[in-house]
Amino acid sequence: MSNAPVITPEQLRVHWQGHRGLTRRVIEAFPEDQVNTFSIGGMRPFGALVQELLAMDIPTMVGITENSWKTSFDRKPQTKAELLAEWDAHTPRIDAYFAKVRPEAWQEVMNAFGYFEGPAINILLYIIDNEVHHRAQGYVYLRALGITPPPFHER
Amino acid sequence: MSNAPVITPEQLRVHWQGHRGLTRRVIEAFPEDQVNTFSIGGMRPFGALVQELLAMDIPTMVGITENSWKTSFDRKPQTKAELLAEWDAHTPRIDAYFAKVRPEAWQEVMNAFGYFEGPAINILLYIIDNEVHHRAQGYVYLRALGITPPPFHER
Repeated sequence: MSNAPVITPEQLRVHWQGHRGLTRRVIEAFPEDQVNTFSIGGMRPFGALVQELLAMDIPTMVGITENSWKTSFDRKPQTKAELLAEWDAHTPRIDAYFAKVRPEAWQEVMNAFGYFEGPAINILLYIIDNEVHHRAQGYVYLRALGITPPPFHER
Repeated sequence: MSNAPVITPEQLRVHWQGHRGLTRRVIEAFPEDQVNTFSIGGMRPFGALVQELLAMDIPTMVGITENSWKTSFDRKPQTKAELLAEWDAHTPRIDAYFAKVRPEAWQEVMNAFGYFEGPAINILLYIIDNEVHHRAQGYVYLRALGITPPPFHER
């Protein structure tokens, strides 16, 4: 097997933080009075989806770094300003945890929250994909509200 | 720098094909008479989004393998059966191209379709993220139609 890396840990960090910057802009684009109420087809409002992301991002980095997997989805609704403030507070913490991950850890099989077992890289990719998935729900909600979402390709 | 891989080419292939399997189940879940017509907020119908994915997947693998980037978005609408047949035809072709990618190519800077310049890995991650993003629009369309979409976590 070649030692040429497919992706480096630093590229993975930048990739995720690029997505997180875009998700932040989608939160910003929501009207305050719709972020916790607007819904289509019985799905959760965007504020609740963002809270799911906030309940998983740091706990995942703690898990990959320390192999200790704990989180709680028992959260109170937050205003748009509170969501943005917590989002921003997580940004440097994610960077700090990335700096602590042992390079070998990405291929170590872990059990994330008793829910998903696989190499750490698969767990983090799931977390990023889940963010892209829920953010895209936010895109549809914004369009349905007559609001142009931020461009998908800008990170 | 450690030589421990963050992800291997084979894991990346399985990751994408897992997403492609889920996207296939979302296509299957659409009623034939809604796949090219149903829309929310002026967005494209799901059939048109799937056609965008079909116009980019093989051309991206050709690009990464041969550094020749050509595609066309000039396509006629397809029935659900035609979309599924083309989707399935692409599956083994993607696998075949994966087997041909030089390991060093993932870190080589390429210009994808004159639109996106970066290491090949970033280009492929963009293609996968774009699929997750558009598929999530499909999830909202299905929910709005009263149809339960396939579980996100099953790949």
